[in-house]
Amino acid sequence: MTSAEYLHMAFLLSKKANSKDIRPNPFVGAILVDQNGSIIGEGYHQKAGEGHAEVNAIRNAKEKVSDLSSCTLYVTLEPCSHFGKTPPCTSLIIENKISKVVIGSMDPNPLVSGVNVLEAAGIEVEICILPEINELNSVFTINHKYKRPKYLLKTATTINGKIADRNASSKWISNNNSRKLVHEKLRSSVDAILTTAKTVIKDNATMNIRVGQEKVEELNAIIIDKNLDLLKQENASLNIFYPRTKSKIYLVTDKIQEGVLPDNLEVIQIPFTNGACDMDQLNADLIKKNFCEILVEAGGKLNASMIKEKQIDEIYLFIAPSLIIDTHAINAFNLDELQLMDNKTVLKLIETTIIDEDVLIRYQLSY
Amino acid sequence: MTSAEYLHMAFLLSKKANSKDIRPNPFVGAILVDQNGSIIGEGYHQKAGEGHAEVNAIRNAKEKVSDLSSCTLYVTLEPCSHFGKTPPCTSLIIENKISKVVIGSMDPNPLVSGVNVLEAAGIEVEICILPEINELNSVFTINHKYKRPKYLLKTATTINGKIADRNASSKWISNNNSRKLVHEKLRSSVDAILTTAKTVIKDNATMNIRVGQEKVEELNAIIIDKNLDLLKQENASLNIFYPRTKSKIYLVTDKIQEGVLPDNLEVIQIPFTNGACDMDQLNADLIKKNFCEILVEAGGKLNASMIKEKQIDEIYLFIAPSLIIDTHAINAFNLDELQLMDNKTVLKLIETTIIDEDVLIRYQLSY
Repeated sequence: MTSAEYLHMAFLLSKKANSKDIRPNPFVGAILVDQNGSIIGEGYHQKAGEGHAEVNAIRNAKEKVSDLSSCTLYVTLEPCSHFGKTPPCTSLIIENKISKVVIGSMDPNPLVSGVNVLEAAGIEVEICILPEINELNSVFTINHKYKRPKYLLKTATTINGKIADRNASSKWISNNNSRKLVHEKLRSSVDAILTTAKTVIKDNATMNIRVGQEKVEELNAIIIDKNLDLLKQENASLNIFYPRTKSKIYLVTDKIQEGVLPDNLEVIQIPFTNGACDMDQLNADLIKKNFCEILVEAGGKLNASMIKEKQIDEIYLFIAPSLIIDTHAINAFNLDELQLMDNKTVLKLIETTIIDEDVLIRYQLSY
Repeated sequence: MTSAEYLHMAFLLSKKANSKDIRPNPFVGAILVDQNGSIIGEGYHQKAGEGHAEVNAIRNAKEKVSDLSSCTLYVTLEPCSHFGKTPPCTSLIIENKISKVVIGSMDPNPLVSGVNVLEAAGIEVEICILPEINELNSVFTINHKYKRPKYLLKTATTINGKIADRNASSKWISNNNSRKLVHEKLRSSVDAILTTAKTVIKDNATMNIRVGQEKVEELNAIIIDKNLDLLKQENASLNIFYPRTKSKIYLVTDKIQEGVLPDNLEVIQIPFTNGACDMDQLNADLIKKNFCEILVEAGGKLNASMIKEKQIDEIYLFIAPSLIIDTHAINAFNLDELQLMDNKTVLKLIETTIIDEDVLIRYQLSY
């Protein structure tokens, strides 16, 4: 078997983890192969704070074999060389005199210089980058590279980009099965939803996760609410305030909140400029709260400013088979700011899916 | 073989014709089958003004067999019963004492009551509608049903429906291969292109047909030009005025044109209301000129008003992987008129095609 084939096996192993259990860590799988090419140890990272993949694979091997000095370790991510919640994996590799390490993706964290440490210890290192590994760990990579959550943006439009009519009515653009997919695939997979008080109030949006006919799950809601409108008495019975036991509402404002808030409500105080909050400060706060991946479901203005601020990594665009010709109907990406053809935002097409008569198009943005 | 199978053979035969040779007639194929199930005659409509499919099939059969009285005629369209450019086919069928006629689609022209005439003459008639036949003849059906050309609308937009930036620059939204498809598939198949003087002037559009790298073909251009701006001296060297030997430019205006126009230029005088021409009158004129199928490539305003006036039958929407967030960038369907969610225009999704990173979505509209 080739290095890529062993690494692909380690990749499949890494996917056994649940993304929410390992946050903010990446998926990592490792296998130990002896000089005959036999797999003698397997491991993957299962839970944040617990053993890394290398540790689990080495432990698994040592149940059977005591001398690993003629083994090769295949690991999907560059081994860590620093003390985090667990000791450095490079030390364990060196201690066990493993002769060769094959690495499937590089760690974006500059604190991790595993390759250098291993080579300095005389261990042969082969780097064999597999695209599927980088793709699986895009959340982790973006968190480190941009010091912010990975943002997915979902919007549902007519064929000419309208998300609502001029009276802001948006019910419904996309069909039942598209909305089901948003709940069961998108909202289910993220750590929180980001929206605005305007959208929450206008749509009386619940922003929970409906799974199948019956089951409802909670979802953390981060709501841009400069003036703390959601704390006004008149908004107290909005759907967003459903009973929460394991999620919270975070109101992003530049006001100082006085008085006691219920347990499930928190205020994130951030400076605003021209009506828009400071995304860098918000992002730092969200990363600290372990919100690694966030779904944006908002109006045309927040959508557009997040694009402009290079905050969006993927777009899930549901195009419904309908048309609103009204100039004043609301566009999905909408700022009163000059953007000329030569300076248009360029996306990368990922895939299209037909859902009844809606067309879901997925795009990626790279910075 | 079943009736549907014989009719499908006749349908395949009908498709041998070139649509432009038979305008304004439909594709029609016919086969004659004897009592043993053997095909003894075949024919299809090849050229407007020449023999109908039934005539050709009967003629073909009679080269071999003189008595057709035990034969069944399978014909993709209800036989005509009136004198057009050729005598009624029903008479020929009756004369030849054909015992049974199987019909694959009904003629939308109320002058054609072939079924009644045949039954009155004691001929057994079976009607077996095949969807592929109706689809192939959608131009003919629309021409008769709505007394107008079939209109295809092509537009290329960003993912939020913009066809140009606020300065009206539209070069380029879609990619090379999408534009190639527009020339080689769409423009090549229609009788004329419909646009506005504004688009022609702003884009200095040629509106011809480029096939491959070298070959250029002419295309009739129908241009809404209320004020005859294109006749102004300053516009005399626009690309639209390329040398024409077999096509014309038609300017649609409410002005009376005085003075002599070049051979390849014609004025269609039509009343206008609120800046929009009377589509019924324009359509009557275009049908008279044998323009059966027309491609609309225009700005957001003409696109939107044609949708509003129920003039568009199909939309070819090219969605490019790009985004312009500017509110003032131009939307593909754009009228300053109220249209609420409950009253949105509903389309039917036909198919999606990926062209490099553009997504082409085809929609149908039914009235």
